[in-house]
Amino acid sequence: MAAKNSERISNGGIHGPTNPMVTPLLNDLYQFTMAYAYWKAGKHQERAVFDLYFRKNPFGGEYTVFSGLEECVRFIANFKLTEDEIDFVRQSLTTTCEEAFLDYLRGLDCSDVEVYAIPEGSVVFPKIPLLRVEGPVAVVQLLETPFVNLINFASLVSTNAARHRKVAGKSKTLLEFGLRRAQGPDGGVGASKYCYIGGFDATSNVAAGKLFGIPLRGTHSHAFVSSYMSLDEITDKSLRRKDGSSTCEDFVSVLLNGVFGETNQSELAAFTSYALAFPDNFLALVDTYDVMRSGIPNFCAVALALGDLGYKAVGIRLDSGDLAYLSCQARKFFCSIEKEFGVPGFGKLIITASNDLNEETLDALNKQGHEVDAFGIGTYLVTCYAQAALGVVFKLVSIPCKKRSYRLYGKEGYPLVDIMTGENEPSPKVGERILCRHPFQESKRAYVVPQHVEELLRCYWPGKSGKKRETLPPLEEIRERCINQLEQMRPDHMRKLNPTPYKVSVSAKLYDFIHFLWLNEAPVGELQ
Amino acid sequence: MAAKNSERISNGGIHGPTNPMVTPLLNDLYQFTMAYAYWKAGKHQERAVFDLYFRKNPFGGEYTVFSGLEECVRFIANFKLTEDEIDFVRQSLTTTCEEAFLDYLRGLDCSDVEVYAIPEGSVVFPKIPLLRVEGPVAVVQLLETPFVNLINFASLVSTNAARHRKVAGKSKTLLEFGLRRAQGPDGGVGASKYCYIGGFDATSNVAAGKLFGIPLRGTHSHAFVSSYMSLDEITDKSLRRKDGSSTCEDFVSVLLNGVFGETNQSELAAFTSYALAFPDNFLALVDTYDVMRSGIPNFCAVALALGDLGYKAVGIRLDSGDLAYLSCQARKFFCSIEKEFGVPGFGKLIITASNDLNEETLDALNKQGHEVDAFGIGTYLVTCYAQAALGVVFKLVSIPCKKRSYRLYGKEGYPLVDIMTGENEPSPKVGERILCRHPFQESKRAYVVPQHVEELLRCYWPGKSGKKRETLPPLEEIRERCINQLEQMRPDHMRKLNPTPYKVSVSAKLYDFIHFLWLNEAPVGELQ
Repeated sequence: MAAKNSERISNGGIHGPTNPMVTPLLNDLYQFTMAYAYWKAGKHQERAVFDLYFRKNPFGGEYTVFSGLEECVRFIANFKLTEDEIDFVRQSLTTTCEEAFLDYLRGLDCSDVEVYAIPEGSVVFPKIPLLRVEGPVAVVQLLETPFVNLINFASLVSTNAARHRKVAGKSKTLLEFGLRRAQGPDGGVGASKYCYIGGFDATSNVAAGKLFGIPLRGTHSHAFVSSYMSLDEITDKSLRRKDGSSTCEDFVSVLLNGVFGETNQSELAAFTSYALAFPDNFLALVDTYDVMRSGIPNFCAVALALGDLGYKAVGIRLDSGDLAYLSCQARKFFCSIEKEFGVPGFGKLIITASNDLNEETLDALNKQGHEVDAFGIGTYLVTCYAQAALGVVFKLVSIPCKKRSYRLYGKEGYPLVDIMTGENEPSPKVGERILCRHPFQESKRAYVVPQHVEELLRCYWPGKSGKKRETLPPLEEIRERCINQLEQMRPDHMRKLNPTPYKVSVSAKLYDFIHFLWLNEAPVGELQ
Repeated sequence: MAAKNSERISNGGIHGPTNPMVTPLLNDLYQFTMAYAYWKAGKHQERAVFDLYFRKNPFGGEYTVFSGLEECVRFIANFKLTEDEIDFVRQSLTTTCEEAFLDYLRGLDCSDVEVYAIPEGSVVFPKIPLLRVEGPVAVVQLLETPFVNLINFASLVSTNAARHRKVAGKSKTLLEFGLRRAQGPDGGVGASKYCYIGGFDATSNVAAGKLFGIPLRGTHSHAFVSSYMSLDEITDKSLRRKDGSSTCEDFVSVLLNGVFGETNQSELAAFTSYALAFPDNFLALVDTYDVMRSGIPNFCAVALALGDLGYKAVGIRLDSGDLAYLSCQARKFFCSIEKEFGVPGFGKLIITASNDLNEETLDALNKQGHEVDAFGIGTYLVTCYAQAALGVVFKLVSIPCKKRSYRLYGKEGYPLVDIMTGENEPSPKVGERILCRHPFQESKRAYVVPQHVEELLRCYWPGKSGKKRETLPPLEEIRERCINQLEQMRPDHMRKLNPTPYKVSVSAKLYDFIHFLWLNEAPVGELQ
């Protein structure tokens, strides 16, 4: 596995998939049985066109964020079966597989495949192809399962992240904390990447930070607090002042001057130890014992002592209890300290909340009123608990059914409608009236005069077409596209309760053509 | 990434994790910030004990299948940070991290960690530790996130598979078809492995077949059928008889003798082409056009022609419509052909059904009556759609709280109760009465006279304890353990509707000790 992947880092300078397990064998067996049958019938080189799309937006919403494209491009750029893999395919075909077919597999790559796609991070809608893949039918079929796998969860979790962002509001910091509850290792790594695209600010997942450059966040756990007994355990109590001017030899005695009431001493010891390790980045988990009677006072004692040495504490994390109430109480406590002790900014310390948060609990917190600045969200976000799968499909379309797709924008800058046309129809033009028809319902249609027209599919893998290949943008750019497009949508499409469906349409010509095919192929039933 | 993983294949001859992305950086950042704080405080070598367990069985059931252990053992056996990783940790700690800490990280491995676990594939219950991990606190904390990640989804999806098996019954073939809808690449590969443990028979996932030796299954798709136009496309029509005695030069004309009614010709061409490629393994997807008027007659024509040359067709797959009704109709058709044409066994051809199946639809099919022999299950199985996460936790326990766990069996061979005792209590003995107490409710307790006593935790990583290390069993053995243990359970624990909770208890001594600690630590509230 290890060696193979590095071999694959070759084509067009595009690296292999992030997960080295993404090889041509990450596939349904039937893609290989079909490849063999196509080959036996001499049909394997016939050109085919497939559209990848989904039928319904997830989470009861009316929008989806498209993600996973870069991994698909990395996959095809490095698509090549190793001898070992070919041997396994041979064994798996449960038939006397002809040697010449294995030679065919040996020569197989995606140099004759073309991939057109909507840019990653775009807001997308049902039925409009996210990808159009053209090429020899046997090869394109081998791309179905990996593509659908790489796009399904990626788009689902990006959308989930965008929905969490929508409820939380722009001003809040959103942290993805889901690695431990994710569906396997790259369920976690993927979630970190795609939640970042969907508008999260940081992750706790170190591997994702390293792989993708996503900002990392993390403090300490309840176990850290429980593992301390008393301040006596702290042996090295010295802390250099922030400005480097001198060293305080006994930080513990400084902070003991400022302890409030009878607090838990093991918690105080843990906070002190953590502050000595991270004086510039002190953020404490305050709910191991009792938030208001121990956690907050202990935190403040340490934060004030740090302040005496020129350091500014960061804040607290609440991980249980009534987050609305406790965040307000904590804020009050901080503000009263700012006033009483004259510490500017103490009232504005960051309050982070975690503990099984999801869209609904964020919404409930908003309604109750809270003082939380940052939310750490795990399980419900990364496993897409509310809907664990997106129904992305990859469908053969006949060559005459090759489509183009456009997004038409109205006067106010909002996207009005997406429209699919036949491959060779003239494109919609700014200022020119065009009839947009519902794909199936005859009576639903509307004229639109677009103020701006955007062709949706771009060429990400030109094959032998000679077209220019779109470069793969850096993650930050994908994230910005996503955030900008989400903001650009008319608000009623985006609301949580009864959102208005965004319109997806076809041109008059394509409508007629689809209906001709549809009626032609539909069998006439016989009621008995 | 690639090179690092192969370096890791070293310790005790145990291979690295299946997914090369599983490295020590697949971790929450706070495990590293805590490691640094422990190290700064000189506490990093302090010995700690952590229990890994879950609080509630998933899917509204009363049992869970424990999976993921082998990957955990592979992880610790090869736990070692590379220079590159250490450098990234240094950058991520956002503080002037001391050079000596990096040296500490350089020397870090799991040689001083002990891991005790219930064998993989066991039926397990809430609160009973699945793993007990002992070792220097800083190292053991670094195992928390990867262990929980590796066990959470594995156990969840094994349990889901076991539940599907329970509804489907022992006699049915269960096929996992979920790769395309899984939560990322190893969401798919993991699901294939852990569904097999939970009692599935095969997977469509070629990578899983190669990695784990799981039997593979797959035929063809709707696109394959649609891609053919007519029988004229088939150029090489010859097929050698099964016994090798001669070659039929025109298989198409043989089968044309037996076509039933006006069927779809592109479907017939696709089936013929597939049969020519896989004459020994002909299984056709029959619902692209019309199951009863085209798919089944076309299949039968091809199957009978194969029969003339000595081959036995396998069967059909239904992927839409009323599966109960269609399977019964198909069976009738097959039986009438067996009779009319005198083809023994034709009535028993395999009927496979797929299409968004889950526990509920299997249950509904059973109630309606059906003739399906094999079920292909995807989305709902592999994403654990009904409950997408299991709440496995990793909790610090004080050394005096180290526990042993036993399963006590009754006269009829059923497990009666799991009991936790203190580390140094004598173990329960066959034929001796022992008091089993509910862990929290004082009034709930029962005497048990076990007929058989099984200690649950075994040593999978001895560290420096000198204990014997359990070997990692092959996948087949894990699967057998699972299937046997599920069968051994009293049926009322396993039923879908209102199952009886299996009892989990503590010894009288442990009960007293837990309550002493609990009352001691609980703050006395103040109502205001």
